[in-house]
Amino acid sequence: MDGVVKGDAVKGGAKDTVGAFISCFEIAGAPEGPLAGLSFAAKDIFDIAGHQTGCGNPDWAKSHDRALEHAPLVAALLGAGARLLGKTHTDELAYSLMGVNAHYGTPVNAADPRRVPGGSSSGSVAAGLVDIGLGSDTGGSVRLPAAFCGVYGLRTTHGALSLAQTMPLAPSFDTLGWFARDLTTMDRTAAALGLPEAQAPTRLLLPVDAWARASAETVAALGPALGRLERCLGAAVPAILAPEGLERWFECFRVCQAAEVWQTHGAWVEAVKPAFGAGVAQRFEMAARIGAAQWAEARAVREGVRTRLGDMLGADTVLVLPTGPAPAPLRETPEPALDDFRQRALALLCAAGLGGLPQLSVPAGGVEGGPVGLSLIGVPGADRALIATAAAAGLEAVHSAG
Amino acid sequence: MDGVVKGDAVKGGAKDTVGAFISCFEIAGAPEGPLAGLSFAAKDIFDIAGHQTGCGNPDWAKSHDRALEHAPLVAALLGAGARLLGKTHTDELAYSLMGVNAHYGTPVNAADPRRVPGGSSSGSVAAGLVDIGLGSDTGGSVRLPAAFCGVYGLRTTHGALSLAQTMPLAPSFDTLGWFARDLTTMDRTAAALGLPEAQAPTRLLLPVDAWARASAETVAALGPALGRLERCLGAAVPAILAPEGLERWFECFRVCQAAEVWQTHGAWVEAVKPAFGAGVAQRFEMAARIGAAQWAEARAVREGVRTRLGDMLGADTVLVLPTGPAPAPLRETPEPALDDFRQRALALLCAAGLGGLPQLSVPAGGVEGGPVGLSLIGVPGADRALIATAAAAGLEAVHSAG
Repeated sequence: MDGVVKGDAVKGGAKDTVGAFISCFEIAGAPEGPLAGLSFAAKDIFDIAGHQTGCGNPDWAKSHDRALEHAPLVAALLGAGARLLGKTHTDELAYSLMGVNAHYGTPVNAADPRRVPGGSSSGSVAAGLVDIGLGSDTGGSVRLPAAFCGVYGLRTTHGALSLAQTMPLAPSFDTLGWFARDLTTMDRTAAALGLPEAQAPTRLLLPVDAWARASAETVAALGPALGRLERCLGAAVPAILAPEGLERWFECFRVCQAAEVWQTHGAWVEAVKPAFGAGVAQRFEMAARIGAAQWAEARAVREGVRTRLGDMLGADTVLVLPTGPAPAPLRETPEPALDDFRQRALALLCAAGLGGLPQLSVPAGGVEGGPVGLSLIGVPGADRALIATAAAAGLEAVHSAG
Repeated sequence: MDGVVKGDAVKGGAKDTVGAFISCFEIAGAPEGPLAGLSFAAKDIFDIAGHQTGCGNPDWAKSHDRALEHAPLVAALLGAGARLLGKTHTDELAYSLMGVNAHYGTPVNAADPRRVPGGSSSGSVAAGLVDIGLGSDTGGSVRLPAAFCGVYGLRTTHGALSLAQTMPLAPSFDTLGWFARDLTTMDRTAAALGLPEAQAPTRLLLPVDAWARASAETVAALGPALGRLERCLGAAVPAILAPEGLERWFECFRVCQAAEVWQTHGAWVEAVKPAFGAGVAQRFEMAARIGAAQWAEARAVREGVRTRLGDMLGADTVLVLPTGPAPAPLRETPEPALDDFRQRALALLCAAGLGGLPQLSVPAGGVEGGPVGLSLIGVPGADRALIATAAAAGLEAVHSAG
């Protein structure tokens, strides 16, 4: 093993003042490569050879062996020259969005320490501890923390990148994603992982039913970033995303996700009876109760959603919408209110998940000190086109100005 | 009296094939004036000297005397040179939006005869029987029928024009309005009635929560008209109209309107016990039950709405939104479904009513053969600025092309 240093000292002298890391160590990347000079951290669901993959729950760590090899995407980043500086906290079994972990604590949101960071490894990127934060996004675990912490986050096209040796949650939704503080790093990472360039979109669609789910202050704060996109691509055309209502899309997402979660982890949960924090425990109980008929019905609704998204989106089109409904909740927010927020957020986040679509969240302003994100959703394979569009529109300048 | 001819022959030889008129006659306008050469009809709530004002209900006609003089706005149109060709049907006591009258039948929607025309005098204008249809707009009785019938309709700024000798419904909401088939006639009428020109707006606000209430097909159909406005005024900026939810605005409207309706007509309803059609009867029963505390609470909410609208809108700003949620319902739609539609429509229509704001509906496309309208809302006094903005953006061309 390369020099493994457990503790809170992130290699390079930076201290993990935000509590983002569950363990710090260094694994050098290849001496040359497109990511040479960049550092990264991986959310603690990716196997790192010789380390315990903990998945945010102590009972998981106890009941699983150490990893024998790197997850292929971790290996790919190392092979491209990036160095790995540690494992970052995850919500328990990644089945949440808020970044609150009952066992390991809640990392600090460096952009606004009063607020939760969102669920995944964004804390490390926002605090400047690493250049790239590797995460997974099933329901929004990259997009929402990116928005909460004022960094860029990409949920990749479903199936485009391997999630082998990475804890699955709901396989038909699970995707790789990552965070960075600038679009150049976002695109370098995408290229290093083998994502192809794609046709630049020329048409913006503004799903009014999604926008209507965001707070008035959030909508107002996103105006300047949207304006930049419109100067590049023309005025956004209003459209309804979900003729049957976004509640129905969210409910379809909830049922499909929960059924897959139980299929993936139910046997382990029943055998080990792990201690879960509030919220997570309730979601596993809910997942255990999804019946076959309910799941089948939700899958049928999902097919309709995919048809609708296919009809709306061509390679020339991007959807532009708020990433989340509001800035991150305050840290002291109790679980029922956090769960309310989570459900409101999922009504915005579920479209890309249901459709297997890539979504890029860009930092695009602030509300009462908390960052908010503007998202671009494209057709499958448009991952890098979304990054290129954000760069062409000068969205980085909005970020810097904000 | 000028030549009074009861019957279905509209002066000039045109026959009232759409059933828009309750009585046809001709009263000549002044020999010269800005509206010379134009004809008009007035909804049967405006007093016409020597005629019975019927207000859409036989018991009203029986229990009220003939009018001794013209309502001032009728007199003003006559004085400006327009000739009056008759009285058009109204929903009972104007307390509806659909144009369905249990006593006198439902006029034909000339733009799509399968659909209801909407409640007021639009049928006459859409069928080409008159140039100007004089109506009143409390909750949307000009705006919605204009959209349904594919014509222009203006709800004027509250209090800008006299409603003397015109049946009141809910005085703090009641406004004069009219219909025409082109913007030139709309503006000639506005000028003849004394509305001043106003500063042209330079900024479009797109209230996403209102747009989200329209059907997907309606939103799509309005795209070209919105695009023309945006080429003129720049991309519309998304905004949330009602941070507390449009349901709450609609509920506030419903309570305030009903309380005023009962205050205005309750004594007559209790004394005469008139026969009302379905829907109208239920609304009067509901109105009778609004308590003082409930009304006071709704008035307080309304103050908040007015503050919100004042904060959002400056003289430089117009709100752009769908007039109604969808094209007009089919004629055979039963009352409960019509009432559902009415409530959906009022969530879109209530903002201008609560705020006392002018709103112009322009015909802007069609969905399954039924016209849909795009609306502009401005600050008080912006009535003619809305007409000028629609003309400058070339919205008439969308109408013609549609």
